[in-house]
Amino acid sequence: MNPKIMIILGSSSDIKIAEKAIDVLEKLQVPYSLHIASAHRTHEKVKNLVIQGTNEGIEVFIAIAGLTAHLGGVIASYTHRPVVGVPVKAKLGGIDASFATAQMPYPAPVATVGIDRGDNGAILAGQIIGINDYNVRKNISNLRNSYVEKVDIDDKKIHSKLN
Amino acid sequence: MNPKIMIILGSSSDIKIAEKAIDVLEKLQVPYSLHIASAHRTHEKVKNLVIQGTNEGIEVFIAIAGLTAHLGGVIASYTHRPVVGVPVKAKLGGIDASFATAQMPYPAPVATVGIDRGDNGAILAGQIIGINDYNVRKNISNLRNSYVEKVDIDDKKIHSKLN
Amino acid sequence: MNPKIMIILGSSSDIKIAEKAIDVLEKLQVPYSLHIASAHRTHEKVKNLVIQGTNEGIEVFIAIAGLTAHLGGVIASYTHRPVVGVPVKAKLGGIDASFATAQMPYPAPVATVGIDRGDNGAILAGQIIGINDYNVRKNISNLRNSYVEKVDIDDKKIHSKLN
Amino acid sequence: MNPKIMIILGSSSDIKIAEKAIDVLEKLQVPYSLHIASAHRTHEKVKNLVIQGTNEGIEVFIAIAGLTAHLGGVIASYTHRPVVGVPVKAKLGGIDASFATAQMPYPAPVATVGIDRGDNGAILAGQIIGINDYNVRKNISNLRNSYVEKVDIDDKKIHSKLN
Amino acid sequence: MNPKIMIILGSSSDIKIAEKAIDVLEKLQVPYSLHIASAHRTHEKVKNLVIQGTNEGIEVFIAIAGLTAHLGGVIASYTHRPVVGVPVKAKLGGIDASFATAQMPYPAPVATVGIDRGDNGAILAGQIIGINDYNVRKNISNLRNSYVEKVDIDDKKIHSKLN
Amino acid sequence: MNPKIMIILGSSSDIKIAEKAIDVLEKLQVPYSLHIASAHRTHEKVKNLVIQGTNEGIEVFIAIAGLTAHLGGVIASYTHRPVVGVPVKAKLGGIDASFATAQMPYPAPVATVGIDRGDNGAILAGQIIGINDYNVRKNISNLRNSYVEKVDIDDKKIHSKLN
Amino acid sequence: MNPKIMIILGSSSDIKIAEKAIDVLEKLQVPYSLHIASAHRTHEKVKNLVIQGTNEGIEVFIAIAGLTAHLGGVIASYTHRPVVGVPVKAKLGGIDASFATAQMPYPAPVATVGIDRGDNGAILAGQIIGINDYNVRKNISNLRNSYVEKVDIDDKKIHSKLN
Amino acid sequence: MNPKIMIILGSSSDIKIAEKAIDVLEKLQVPYSLHIASAHRTHEKVKNLVIQGTNEGIEVFIAIAGLTAHLGGVIASYTHRPVVGVPVKAKLGGIDASFATAQMPYPAPVATVGIDRGDNGAILAGQIIGINDYNVRKNISNLRNSYVEKVDIDDKKIHSKLN
Repeated sequence: MNPKIMIILGSSSDIKIAEKAIDVLEKLQVPYSLHIASAHRTHEKVKNLVIQGTNEGIEVFIAIAGLTAHLGGVIASYTHRPVVGVPVKAKLGGIDASFATAQMPYPAPVATVGIDRGDNGAILAGQIIGINDYNVRKNISNLRNSYVEKVDIDDKKIHSKLN
Repeated sequence: MNPKIMIILGSSSDIKIAEKAIDVLEKLQVPYSLHIASAHRTHEKVKNLVIQGTNEGIEVFIAIAGLTAHLGGVIASYTHRPVVGVPVKAKLGGIDASFATAQMPYPAPVATVGIDRGDNGAILAGQIIGINDYNVRKNISNLRNSYVEKVDIDDKKIHSKLN
Repeated sequence: MNPKIMIILGSSSDIKIAEKAIDVLEKLQVPYSLHIASAHRTHEKVKNLVIQGTNEGIEVFIAIAGLTAHLGGVIASYTHRPVVGVPVKAKLGGIDASFATAQMPYPAPVATVGIDRGDNGAILAGQIIGINDYNVRKNISNLRNSYVEKVDIDDKKIHSKLN
Repeated sequence: MNPKIMIILGSSSDIKIAEKAIDVLEKLQVPYSLHIASAHRTHEKVKNLVIQGTNEGIEVFIAIAGLTAHLGGVIASYTHRPVVGVPVKAKLGGIDASFATAQMPYPAPVATVGIDRGDNGAILAGQIIGINDYNVRKNISNLRNSYVEKVDIDDKKIHSKLN
Repeated sequence: MNPKIMIILGSSSDIKIAEKAIDVLEKLQVPYSLHIASAHRTHEKVKNLVIQGTNEGIEVFIAIAGLTAHLGGVIASYTHRPVVGVPVKAKLGGIDASFATAQMPYPAPVATVGIDRGDNGAILAGQIIGINDYNVRKNISNLRNSYVEKVDIDDKKIHSKLN
Repeated sequence: MNPKIMIILGSSSDIKIAEKAIDVLEKLQVPYSLHIASAHRTHEKVKNLVIQGTNEGIEVFIAIAGLTAHLGGVIASYTHRPVVGVPVKAKLGGIDASFATAQMPYPAPVATVGIDRGDNGAILAGQIIGINDYNVRKNISNLRNSYVEKVDIDDKKIHSKLN
Repeated sequence: MNPKIMIILGSSSDIKIAEKAIDVLEKLQVPYSLHIASAHRTHEKVKNLVIQGTNEGIEVFIAIAGLTAHLGGVIASYTHRPVVGVPVKAKLGGIDASFATAQMPYPAPVATVGIDRGDNGAILAGQIIGINDYNVRKNISNLRNSYVEKVDIDDKKIHSKLN
Repeated sequence: MNPKIMIILGSSSDIKIAEKAIDVLEKLQVPYSLHIASAHRTHEKVKNLVIQGTNEGIEVFIAIAGLTAHLGGVIASYTHRPVVGVPVKAKLGGIDASFATAQMPYPAPVATVGIDRGDNGAILAGQIIGINDYNVRKNISNLRNSYVEKVDIDDKKIHSKLN
């Protein structure tokens, strides 16, 4: 099946954040591809990946990057598809990457999620895909429901501990 | 035509930021609806708007709010649709609203754009709608092209001023 | 005895902060209940807990949450009782949760204490209960007095070490 | 009628924030007193006001102060009553006063509300008084309901403007 | 004479900061060119300007940009010449642009100066050019000396005012 | 010999920072006393220590405290002697304590040094004592000279390692 | 009379902050001198002023500077006298200058006061001079007493307005 | 061969950051010298190193310092050569050093790179040297190319792991 989501990591050091995204996308059964390519150091590679990906049916891009975190913005300059940005904590608690992802000028937004939240980046991408894909929508519902159950179980555990 | 995007403002004081979003959505020719409803003060109204809106075909929600800016998160708890959050500067330069929108826990992301960027919130919503709507995609392209032309004209003006 | 204070945790990962609150409430001999329920992920559960709790005599709610920390605000939207918010450090040193708890709009305050200060959240709740409860007031006095004694003992230890 | 709430301002320059609190307390029909007294510059006056006030039936103190904003903490050291702190923006957007109010050590909490939110400080104090005062509770309900109506009117105005 | 420095502005709204740079470069008698081109919105234009400029003898690039301020980083990805970045205050006091310029990953530095400091960006570029250009070095010395004189005159004025 | 400097710690947990101060004061041969007393929890003790200390010849107070760090300000309200404040890192990297010490209103300054810098607090106190005490001045000079020698030795070590 | 305090401003643009210091020193009747000299741009001048001033009896230096605010640190490197630093708000609300003044390494403290607080810088310098000067001590007491009276008058005005 | 770059560390504790710079300069084959000298504590040494270095052919200075990080600014006051500043994380995540390096006033810029980025400081210095040195330019190209290859290898590894 052709990938609908392309994840690009700015550096191999961000792999743990990517794994959180992959884990969710597997559960949502959304086909994806994964690449490492740096906004500044392998700019042409990013460009080629994004243009080719857009042509071949990628519907959402997920950029995972720390520090100046320009990756999301660079992807956004080569595609009309929505770009999800996951800022990674490398220095300053990730505040640099968070601003560098969210504060994009008009008309080039990057849909920013929380610092190190590869999981939420994947959920957001899944919600976008799910607008026209019943199965993905259902999988998100299941995933949310199982989360609700987990909270209920945690809640019960706490009560039995207290009494 | 049924609205595909619902904009909710947390307060009538955020109307200028909403107008930036509306202006873009008009250009993109995406039908939208607009509401004022507060996450904390008229919680039930938010809930009803979101549940009914989701049932009636809203594909993307845009939440515009300042301060603790919980609106996006509250909307996200009532729908599986993607929620775009526009943090508004009210205090602290908007840093409070920016974090309160972006730092959402798993699995409830809000797609955060820059502070006061109603325009980018609308572009992002348009990009999402545009995945399955050729006209919206084309309108985004036109809008981006006209922006490029504006930059070129600005560039020429500057040169003629210098010489 | 019916609980007068309800503690709600946003996530089981915040349990250590809750234990600090519980430890203080035990000393103050204020009856309390404890729940895990997420503002975004189990919204209805929060709502039901708060409405039912208010009806059954809860006088103060304590919300313990990190990141966007909307829990306090959501509780405040379902009750007229005072809500104490304890921001938890998860990212950014807890500055995100601190602002997301304190910067609430009118007329929906959350009484915010320091980051990770479950103990102070309980003291504050105890002070509120104590306005009309002599025993709780006395227990707070005892607790403060024993603290003063501890400081005096620490002071003496330091002097004996120096000489 | 004896005042139940004592507002203390750190400086006459904070009067506008106090007026927001007074305006709400008048609506809630909670009797209050108002003083200007500085934590550092008229320390004894603060001490006397707080001790005497506590003896004479003050149930909640509201401290309004900017910069190092120690006023709330100083009040808390002389009373067992709950102390509400309103941080005022004087420098740094009020972030200094906000931390200096909220980050209190154990066991001396100050119930911190948003920057410049005299109105929310009064609501919180009213909620505390309202635990044992039906009239105040009813007045808070009325005030919240009138707020909901205002949001509804704003919402309708926006719709009529759009069409 | 061929320009040795190329200034690129991310937006025509940054022109006042550019004028501060131009004013200094005129005094240093370093030939320069000036362009408006956005990192995200006219990416290809930036690329062409930088590659062509590098081939035609540009020795230092100056990027002037606010918000996510990716311009400096994008320029750095197309040239081996040093890139000077001037972060512009648009939101958050310019802290977003400052981090987004300075926090670049290895091996793609941007030589960041102070917020809104077009003048210092030009001085830095002049110092770099001046390593191999006696006239520019001399002009920087003159400019610094005239600054010292200004400080001395200010100093004298203050004394005469005091006495 | 009567102490000329009084160090007050807000909590026994700050003892490591106090030890840095003590170590320097021993080298400067300035007699000092050391106390633990909290601004909020043992307020009267602070007051008595400061008033009595001022009467008995204390010339400089050093306050060591974290979080809201009101200790320095409280000391300043009971004495006309200069008060040195050492903010301690407990949460938020110590930024809360740093602002809560430095941002004091007129006319009640606290002479703030760097976060966790007990050593610099002692040097500053020593410089103040040294204005009228030749021996302390000489000891500061010696201490600074030995520091210069240490830097020179470090410098030489680095060179020998390189070659 | 020979000056005991030397005020150095980093730039003529900081004059308003200096005037606040001068106004206080006049009231304290402490003789002072005033200079404009930049840490980076007229370094030798700073050096000469400080060395000569120290030799001629200056007991406290006051450095008033914004941005990187190195002036206090540079003065501290040429004298053993205590150096008071007044950070000035130029960018970022003065947070840059505040850290650049306070966070000095061992053994070179700068006694930092609040942002733009020329008045408190003068009070602190006066407190230091006052250790051995009864008149200055008395003048500080008078100034503090008149401040207390002003607070009392403000307090009375507010009461008469309320009733 | 005479050194073209002089690295100065503010303290021996910053040696790890210096090693990152040295490692890059070795690869670029740019001759350098290395010194430890503190802006405040061994000011004269810094001055002598910079003046002598400038006379003997140093073309770029690299200052590595934390906290108030004045070293870069002090170097800049003694030379017309470009000064690269590497802020070091010691407290506050390095935000103090970053501002204290970047926010320099006119006309004394310091070319600031990311926090702890000794490597990027060296690349930037190499780019400056490379303007007139073909070999250094070539070495930077090689280093960048090997980086691109590393990213490609990382990319391939990730794919093989996924499949």
